[in-house]
Amino acid sequence: MTTAVPTLPAFADVLSAAARIAPHAQQTPVLRSQSLDDMVGCRLHFKCENLQRVGAFKFRGACNAIFALDDVAASRGILTQSSGNHGAAVALASRLRGTSATVVVPEGAPAVKLAAIAGYGARIVRCAPTMAARNAAAAALAEDTGAHLVHPFDDAHVIAGQGTVALEFLRSEPELDALLTPVGGGGLLSGCALAARTLRPGLEILGAEPKGAADAHASLREGRCITDMVANTICDGLRGQLAPRTLALLRRHVDGILIVDDSAVIEAMRLLWERLKLVVEPSGAIALAAVLRNRERFAGRRVGIVISGGNVDLDTLPWQAHA
Amino acid sequence: MTTAVPTLPAFADVLSAAARIAPHAQQTPVLRSQSLDDMVGCRLHFKCENLQRVGAFKFRGACNAIFALDDVAASRGILTQSSGNHGAAVALASRLRGTSATVVVPEGAPAVKLAAIAGYGARIVRCAPTMAARNAAAAALAEDTGAHLVHPFDDAHVIAGQGTVALEFLRSEPELDALLTPVGGGGLLSGCALAARTLRPGLEILGAEPKGAADAHASLREGRCITDMVANTICDGLRGQLAPRTLALLRRHVDGILIVDDSAVIEAMRLLWERLKLVVEPSGAIALAAVLRNRERFAGRRVGIVISGGNVDLDTLPWQAHA
Repeated sequence: MTTAVPTLPAFADVLSAAARIAPHAQQTPVLRSQSLDDMVGCRLHFKCENLQRVGAFKFRGACNAIFALDDVAASRGILTQSSGNHGAAVALASRLRGTSATVVVPEGAPAVKLAAIAGYGARIVRCAPTMAARNAAAAALAEDTGAHLVHPFDDAHVIAGQGTVALEFLRSEPELDALLTPVGGGGLLSGCALAARTLRPGLEILGAEPKGAADAHASLREGRCITDMVANTICDGLRGQLAPRTLALLRRHVDGILIVDDSAVIEAMRLLWERLKLVVEPSGAIALAAVLRNRERFAGRRVGIVISGGNVDLDTLPWQAHA
Repeated sequence: MTTAVPTLPAFADVLSAAARIAPHAQQTPVLRSQSLDDMVGCRLHFKCENLQRVGAFKFRGACNAIFALDDVAASRGILTQSSGNHGAAVALASRLRGTSATVVVPEGAPAVKLAAIAGYGARIVRCAPTMAARNAAAAALAEDTGAHLVHPFDDAHVIAGQGTVALEFLRSEPELDALLTPVGGGGLLSGCALAARTLRPGLEILGAEPKGAADAHASLREGRCITDMVANTICDGLRGQLAPRTLALLRRHVDGILIVDDSAVIEAMRLLWERLKLVVEPSGAIALAAVLRNRERFAGRRVGIVISGGNVDLDTLPWQAHA
């Protein structure tokens, strides 16, 4: 039996992605907070992808994948499956490319993210909240429509696009000692690791993963994709599980995965709202949460934190729901 | 009877302030949102002073006033009266200058702002929530201690410091057609108007004022400071009333004051949280609220909005309190 080896993006693909998405994506700011630094005991630099278009880094990867298509392929429409931010990103990037989008959304996705997908003009198809159901529904629609499937992370163009986060980050902050990003399916972490390992070979590159969806940690330990976990975490954007492509990149470039419980995520989220004045969703706060729970590890160092997204239901906040 | 003519800052004082505060203050980013532009029908540029140190533009003026003192004067300590952000700004700037600070705070100031003042190491003295009580308490303390009084807005150095907001804003966005800032005591608006009128003589310069504290509008109409209004607004940072110095600058440089009700402020605040992913306090959202309530006036124009601060109690949000 042979297994197809997935195409892995290279550093040059991240550079190409940066050029391709430049007319559409934001160069997001890097913010600092003296009071957070004092509290945590290291120098934190926050790359604010919650200020990216659609409110999440996901726009970078989707934009790169969709603008890389030739006109004929793009004209057949775009298809994806996503619990939220990637769906909105595909919807907006498709509209900017002048084509249609269909998004398969699992039951239980946050209302604010569904509204965003619909707001950018995409068609929504609901499915059961499992990766198997999502993939099956997307595959069936792809066959029916001929639309191009843009996977949320198991796609070389998507990974290269997400890598532009680290490219920008390290260009504006060349002195970082460590870089932390959230990890769900691994698109952001693997893309950033690919870019960062080339730009700064000695940089420590870490993922932050919720305790209730710690498949990336287990997958790296066992050297294979663990796909049978049932996610249970407030981090709705981090329920995805690694694919062979992202696992291969993480094994090559990443120094470790820090596991964080939801209470630390809520604490970090509130700190980001209070101190940085940024609206950050739970998944977007997990890298800071990992620092809060591992202060001695980062003491005195210059730590780059990727705030991955800011799409959160403002009717009830997590610290209220948990009060 | 003769009345002392207050010292008015000039444009050169804004330039001096910019140089003086540069080592300490943030150059805040200017953010945009396509979805907000589409909703409102004009091109909005947001100068994010909620991302300034202490979470508000107030740091600029306080820093300028305190660093302009000679060492002997500074060593006697700093004193101010403030409902919140200016108090935190004086506390931090005093600490950076290596001196002590005392802040007279009226009853009813938000807990989050009191905590910030204390957090920066200042002594807090409580008083009744009227301008007369605040001024009397501050004057008595000044006499007792010999500390230097930094008024929240009736101070040429403070006004010049606040003017650096417009200086930065117009340097990064030279094509604006209109500039809107909140107006309470008038320090931000008068400083920004002073800077903007020199840099862009044809720019429309407007203040946005809560309906429940519309003394600036009345004062400009009558040509004298109206100081007997009882403020009733969610905008806790805009309850101050013009002083002769700020009134004189507003009469000279400002094209108008737009009055906005609290419901528009809450609507604007939620839009900024949802679309810009920024935590903005009610006072900080009022300039956008003025655009929301006057869409035809701004249709198709390039409008600069100053988001003045982001210090808000996160336990209960205004749209929840009003639900």
